[in-house]
Amino acid sequence: MLTKKGAATRQRIIEAAAAEIREHGVAAATLEDIGRRSGTGKSQMFHYFPDGKDQLLLAVAQWEAGRVLEDQQPYLGQLTTWEAWHRWRDVVVERYRRQGVHCPLGVLITEVGPKTPGAQAVTRQLLEQWQHEVRQGITAMRDSGRISRDIDSDRAAAALIAAIQGGVTILMSTGSAAHLESALDLCLDYLRLPVSA
Amino acid sequence: MLTKKGAATRQRIIEAAAAEIREHGVAAATLEDIGRRSGTGKSQMFHYFPDGKDQLLLAVAQWEAGRVLEDQQPYLGQLTTWEAWHRWRDVVVERYRRQGVHCPLGVLITEVGPKTPGAQAVTRQLLEQWQHEVRQGITAMRDSGRISRDIDSDRAAAALIAAIQGGVTILMSTGSAAHLESALDLCLDYLRLPVSA
Repeated sequence: MLTKKGAATRQRIIEAAAAEIREHGVAAATLEDIGRRSGTGKSQMFHYFPDGKDQLLLAVAQWEAGRVLEDQQPYLGQLTTWEAWHRWRDVVVERYRRQGVHCPLGVLITEVGPKTPGAQAVTRQLLEQWQHEVRQGITAMRDSGRISRDIDSDRAAAALIAAIQGGVTILMSTGSAAHLESALDLCLDYLRLPVSA
Repeated sequence: MLTKKGAATRQRIIEAAAAEIREHGVAAATLEDIGRRSGTGKSQMFHYFPDGKDQLLLAVAQWEAGRVLEDQQPYLGQLTTWEAWHRWRDVVVERYRRQGVHCPLGVLITEVGPKTPGAQAVTRQLLEQWQHEVRQGITAMRDSGRISRDIDSDRAAAALIAAIQGGVTILMSTGSAAHLESALDLCLDYLRLPVSA
């Protein structure tokens, strides 16, 4: 268990590492540079990340995954009106359009190894949390009578997450957000189907 | 321009390489093994792939991309009835479920480098061809009055391709086809919306 001060130091190292990696790439970001940027020495770095660079990279990946969700707030956390859904849709498209072909989280996952348990846990938790928030929004809209009871919240939330994942993957390959927009819009149109009497 | 015999030899090398890579992985598949399997010597390999292993890997990637589409036939090429659409949906899900977390095309793209022009061309052509066939199906269904004229074929085809891409990406990370199925089913339900009078 870290003390409050310890947790703050650890967090400072993670954010310094994230910034170094975003600026110079994961291969060029050395522990020395990260130490200098965060104002921590070698022994401190070792104290918080005794297993070395991969352990630090995973912690950075975890932090980047958190940012993916934060960037969608406050809309993602309160998808209770159609206005919030459409704002959320725009924020997601704009976020990934700005990010373009360079995904900070993807870089880290690739470096640590997409098949390693640590990397898979980060990816899985991100998708689960994301899908959970979308599902809560759909459920709230159903409860307030804005979304038809014929719509399965679990399935629709899973489909939305797949649509975003696919749209972003294609954006990272082509540079165009067209697929992401088409997929999100089709899902939203589907959710907006008339509520049967 | 290759002679008919030349084209056959080149194809034999590509298929031998694909088999070696599927069995042993891309790193372990040597030009020697591929030569032995295809019954071609070093000078022949050099004749057809003068730029070396990466050129051969790209040709294999092209071939694997073709198989992705072939595996969806005959349904993908004749999406003119709802029965064909649902069979196609099942074939796609079954294909990727069987493939699991190991994607032969993805391995090649990763090896050659996802950002290289050659790899990007293979990916782009696959997505374009796939989307083209889906769009033709939607257009045919619209023309025969089975799909509402309110539905935009371009957008719906792009959304379907993104849905599949996302579902497969998640399947490769989690091992589960649930997202792929949810996303495909939501898109199909959307296409099946009642045709307005």
